[in-house]
Amino acid sequence: MRRFAAERARKFLSSSLRSSYSYSSSSSSNPLPAAAAAAAAAAASTAMSSTISPPVTVDSINPKVKKCEYAVRGEIVTHAQRLQQELQTSPGSLPFDEILYCNIGNPQSLGQQPITFFREVLALCDHPALLDRDETHALFSSDAIARAWEILDLIPGRATGAYSHSQGIKGLRDAIAAGIAARDGFPANADDIFLTDGASPAVHMMMQLLIRSEKDGILCPIPQYPLYSASIALHGGSLVPYYLNEATGWGLEIFEVKSQLEDARSKGITVRALVVINPGNPTGQVLAEANQREIVEFCKKEGLVLLADEVYQENIYVENKQFNSFKKISRLMGYGEELSLVSFQSVSKGYYGECGKRGGYMEVTGFTPDVREQIYKVASVNLCSNISGQILASLVMNPPKVGDESYESFTAEKEGILQSLARRAQALEDAFNNLEGVTCNKAEGAMYLFPRLHLPQKAIDAAKAANAAPDAFYARRLLDATGIVVVPGSGFRQVPGTWHMRCTILPQEDKIPAIISRLKAFHEAFMEEFRD
Amino acid sequence: MRRFAAERARKFLSSSLRSSYSYSSSSSSNPLPAAAAAAAAAAASTAMSSTISPPVTVDSINPKVKKCEYAVRGEIVTHAQRLQQELQTSPGSLPFDEILYCNIGNPQSLGQQPITFFREVLALCDHPALLDRDETHALFSSDAIARAWEILDLIPGRATGAYSHSQGIKGLRDAIAAGIAARDGFPANADDIFLTDGASPAVHMMMQLLIRSEKDGILCPIPQYPLYSASIALHGGSLVPYYLNEATGWGLEIFEVKSQLEDARSKGITVRALVVINPGNPTGQVLAEANQREIVEFCKKEGLVLLADEVYQENIYVENKQFNSFKKISRLMGYGEELSLVSFQSVSKGYYGECGKRGGYMEVTGFTPDVREQIYKVASVNLCSNISGQILASLVMNPPKVGDESYESFTAEKEGILQSLARRAQALEDAFNNLEGVTCNKAEGAMYLFPRLHLPQKAIDAAKAANAAPDAFYARRLLDATGIVVVPGSGFRQVPGTWHMRCTILPQEDKIPAIISRLKAFHEAFMEEFRD
Repeated sequence: MRRFAAERARKFLSSSLRSSYSYSSSSSSNPLPAAAAAAAAAAASTAMSSTISPPVTVDSINPKVKKCEYAVRGEIVTHAQRLQQELQTSPGSLPFDEILYCNIGNPQSLGQQPITFFREVLALCDHPALLDRDETHALFSSDAIARAWEILDLIPGRATGAYSHSQGIKGLRDAIAAGIAARDGFPANADDIFLTDGASPAVHMMMQLLIRSEKDGILCPIPQYPLYSASIALHGGSLVPYYLNEATGWGLEIFEVKSQLEDARSKGITVRALVVINPGNPTGQVLAEANQREIVEFCKKEGLVLLADEVYQENIYVENKQFNSFKKISRLMGYGEELSLVSFQSVSKGYYGECGKRGGYMEVTGFTPDVREQIYKVASVNLCSNISGQILASLVMNPPKVGDESYESFTAEKEGILQSLARRAQALEDAFNNLEGVTCNKAEGAMYLFPRLHLPQKAIDAAKAANAAPDAFYARRLLDATGIVVVPGSGFRQVPGTWHMRCTILPQEDKIPAIISRLKAFHEAFMEEFRD
Repeated sequence: MRRFAAERARKFLSSSLRSSYSYSSSSSSNPLPAAAAAAAAAAASTAMSSTISPPVTVDSINPKVKKCEYAVRGEIVTHAQRLQQELQTSPGSLPFDEILYCNIGNPQSLGQQPITFFREVLALCDHPALLDRDETHALFSSDAIARAWEILDLIPGRATGAYSHSQGIKGLRDAIAAGIAARDGFPANADDIFLTDGASPAVHMMMQLLIRSEKDGILCPIPQYPLYSASIALHGGSLVPYYLNEATGWGLEIFEVKSQLEDARSKGITVRALVVINPGNPTGQVLAEANQREIVEFCKKEGLVLLADEVYQENIYVENKQFNSFKKISRLMGYGEELSLVSFQSVSKGYYGECGKRGGYMEVTGFTPDVREQIYKVASVNLCSNISGQILASLVMNPPKVGDESYESFTAEKEGILQSLARRAQALEDAFNNLEGVTCNKAEGAMYLFPRLHLPQKAIDAAKAANAAPDAFYARRLLDATGIVVVPGSGFRQVPGTWHMRCTILPQEDKIPAIISRLKAFHEAFMEEFRD
C-alpha cells in the first residue's frame, strides 16, 4: 500500500507538464511575444549544444522530501481532477455530472457559507476607510463595525498591512487567551499563543524543534491525519504508531500506547512527544475526560510532550460527549507548567470552516524560557502569520455575545451548520452501516467517517492484480462510478489487513440522499462483481 | 560577532516570561477562575512531588534550530520593544519620545498607506455579499467591483474560504503568468507558479528540496538577507559565501563567485544553487544586464540552480538602472527549460508593502516533471497559501490599467510612494556620507542603505569590553540615544573586520529631517567619546 500511496500525483503532473516541459529545449507551445522572437536564433544554437543533465533530479533531492507522503491530496484527487476536466470538455461522457470531493475537510468548497459576522469584520479591517463612511452603517452590522474598530485599535498604527510581532498581534493574542480562559475556566496567557497560517505550520514548527534524527520518535495514533506522518518524514524523525481500537469506537488505550513506547525505546528510539487528535481525524471519536486524564498522567510520567490537535473542538455531534481541552484537563488534575503541552487550533474547522484564510494558533505551555525563545526564533524567521488569519482566529475564539446586534443571526448560522453536520454524519453513518460488509463507528465529532470495508477475497485479488491496495482499488472504482472522492484508509495507515476509507460529512444536506443512493448502487454492484 | 548575534532575544524573553513561568509549580499570578480554585488542593500535592527534568531542554532540541540565527528580529529589536514599553509606562523618561523601527522592511508599520484599489478588491472578496448591494457602488470604485467579480468567478464556487489547489487558484496563477509575460516579453505558464504565504516559505521549500546534509552548499551573497542563512541552517546545509564588492557599489563579481565555488568543491561540498538578491538586500544595488548574463551563464555551466530573489523588482530609484528578471535575461540569451531557475516575488515589498497579507509566489522553471511533482507534494502538505494573499499577488502583477476608473488615483498613490522612497533614500544616503568615518553606497533599489562604519579603535575596544561586535555596540548606543533601530551589519555577515548597519529608508518623509539630525548629533558625540 505504501507503494501505491507513493505514486501520488505523478501521472497527473507528468501529463499536465508534458506539453510545456521539454528538457534541453527552449521551445514553447505558447505564442511568443515580440522580444522572444528576437532571441530565437540564439536559442537554437545555445540550447542544442547543451545536453548535460539537469542540476536537480529526483535522485539528488533531499531524501526526506522523497519519503514524505500526503494522501489527502494524493493520486485519487488528481484522478478526480482529470475526471472533472473531462466533464467540462465532454459533458455527459461520464456516469455522473459532478465530482463530489469528500476527500478533504474543506466545507466552503462544498457550498457551506461563511459566517456573516466574521466576514464583515474582515472586510472592514481590510479596507478601514469604509469605517468613515455613512453608507457603511447600511451595509454592516453595528457590532461588526465596533469589533473592527476594536481590532484596529489593537494594531500599532492600525496597520493591517504591516508585519506583526512574530507570535501575532499582542492584542489579538490577549483576546484569544481570554477566549481560551472562558472555554476552560483556567487562565491563559497571551505570551503562550503563537498565531500561525493554519495549524499545519504550527505542527511543523514543533516537529522541527523536537526531531534531531531518525532516532527521535513521535507517538501518533493510527489511523492518523497524514500531516503528522508527512511532517515527521520531512524532519527526518520516526513515527511511533499506536493503534486506536476500532472495536471500542476508536478507543485510545493507554496500555497500547505504553507498549508501543516501550517497544520503540527498546529499539533505541528516544520518544519525544505524543500526538493526540481530539476529536479524531480520520476517526471522529471524542475522548472521555477519564481517558484524557490517563493520557496527561502518561505524558507526565514518561516525560513526553503532549501535542494536542484540537482543531475540531467545536465539531461535536452527540449529546453524551463534550470537548475538553487537554489544558483544562491537566489544570483540573493540578498540573501547571510542569506538563509540556501544545494545543493546536485552526480557523479551518469548527462551524466556520475558513480553510482558505489560513488562520490558527498553538498554545504552548510547560516549556522552559530558553526553549520558548527557540520557538520564537523559528517563528520570527517567517516574520509573522497573515493578519486576516490572525484576526479571524481572534473572532472564532470570541464570537458575538448575547446583546450584540449580530448575536441572533450569528447563532442561527452557527447552529444551522452544526445541526446540519450532525444530521449528515448520522445519515452517512447509517448508510455505510447498511452496506453489505461495511461497518462504521459513530462520528461523534470532527468532519469524517472512517468505515471499515470487509472486502471479498476476489476484490482483494483484483486490487493486487491492479497493483493497488484493496481500499485504494475500491475508492478508485467508487470515483469512476459515482464521482464521489474518498481517501483510501491506507493514506492514514490502519491495522494491517484491514481496509477503510475516509469520507467527509461535508456535502450539502440536499445532496446527501443522492450520494447515499449512488454509493449504495455502486457498492451492491461491486460486491456482486467480486462475490467469493 | 556570532556569539553576540546568537544572544538574540534571550534576555528579553527570559524577563518577560519569568513572571508567568515557574517550572515544577502550577501557581500563576493571574487570578484563577472558579474551576481552577477547585483544583488547588490536587495541584499542591501533584506538583510538589514532581521534580524530574522537563522533556525538552535547549540542549535536547534539534541542533539545527539552535544554530539558526535571524538578526532582523534579534536582540536589538527586543531591546527596542523594552524601550517602547518604558516610553508607554513612563513618558518622558528617555531622550526621545518614539521608537523608529528602521530595522525591517515593513512600510505600513511606519505609516505608508495601502493602495486603495487593492484593499477595495480584498474587502469585496472577503464579503462578497456586498456586491449585491446598491450602497456598494457609492463606496467602491467600479473597477474594484468588476475585478472582485472577475476574481470570484475564477474561484470554484466563489468560495474564498475554501482551500485552493496547493499551487494556488488556477485563474489567479493565469493572471500572474500574464503579468510576468507582460513584464518580461516572454511567455509564462500558470503551472510554473506556486503561490505562497510571502516569499519566505517559498525559499524554505526550495532549501528543503535541495539540501540533503551539511555537504550540500548554497552560494549566497555576503552581505545577505538572513532568511537565507537561517533557512540553510534549519535545513542542515552549508552556506557558501561570495562577497559583494563594496568598492564597486556592491558589485557581484563572477570571479569571486567562481573562486568560492571551487573552494567549496575542494572541501567536498556539493554546491547546489546560487542565490542572487536583485535589487540587493541589504545592499540596495541593481544588477546590470551584462552582469545578469554572466550569472546565468555561470549557473548553466556549473550546473547550479539559480535562486533569484526578485521581491524588490518594483523598487528602483535611479534613472540609469532598470529591473530585469533573470527569467527575461535567460530567455533573451536563448535559454529555456534547460536552466533551473526559481524567481521569488512577494506582496510585502514594491510600492504596495503589504507585509501583513503574506502573499507571494515562486515561478519555477527548468525542473524535470518528477522534481516538480516533489515540490508540489511539499506544497500540498500545507494545503495552500492564504487566499487573500493569493488575490493580492494577482493584483500586484495586474494593477489597474489605462481607462480603468481607479487608474489615475492608483497611479498617483503608486508614484507618490515610489518617488518619496527615492527622495528618502537620497536624503539618508547623503546624511550617512556626511558623517565622519561613514561611507554609504547608493540605494539604487530595494528599501535599505548599508553604510560602512569606520570606527575608532577605542570604540572597537569598548565594544569588545561589552562583549559585543563593534557595529552591534554602535547600533545599541544609537538606539539608546535616539530611538532609531537599525540592524548591525554582523546580522547579514560582512567582510571580516568591516562594520556596517542596515537602515531602511521607510520612515515617513516628514520625519526624515529629524532622524537625520538625531543621527548626526549621536554620531558626533559617539566619535567624540571614542576618538583615538
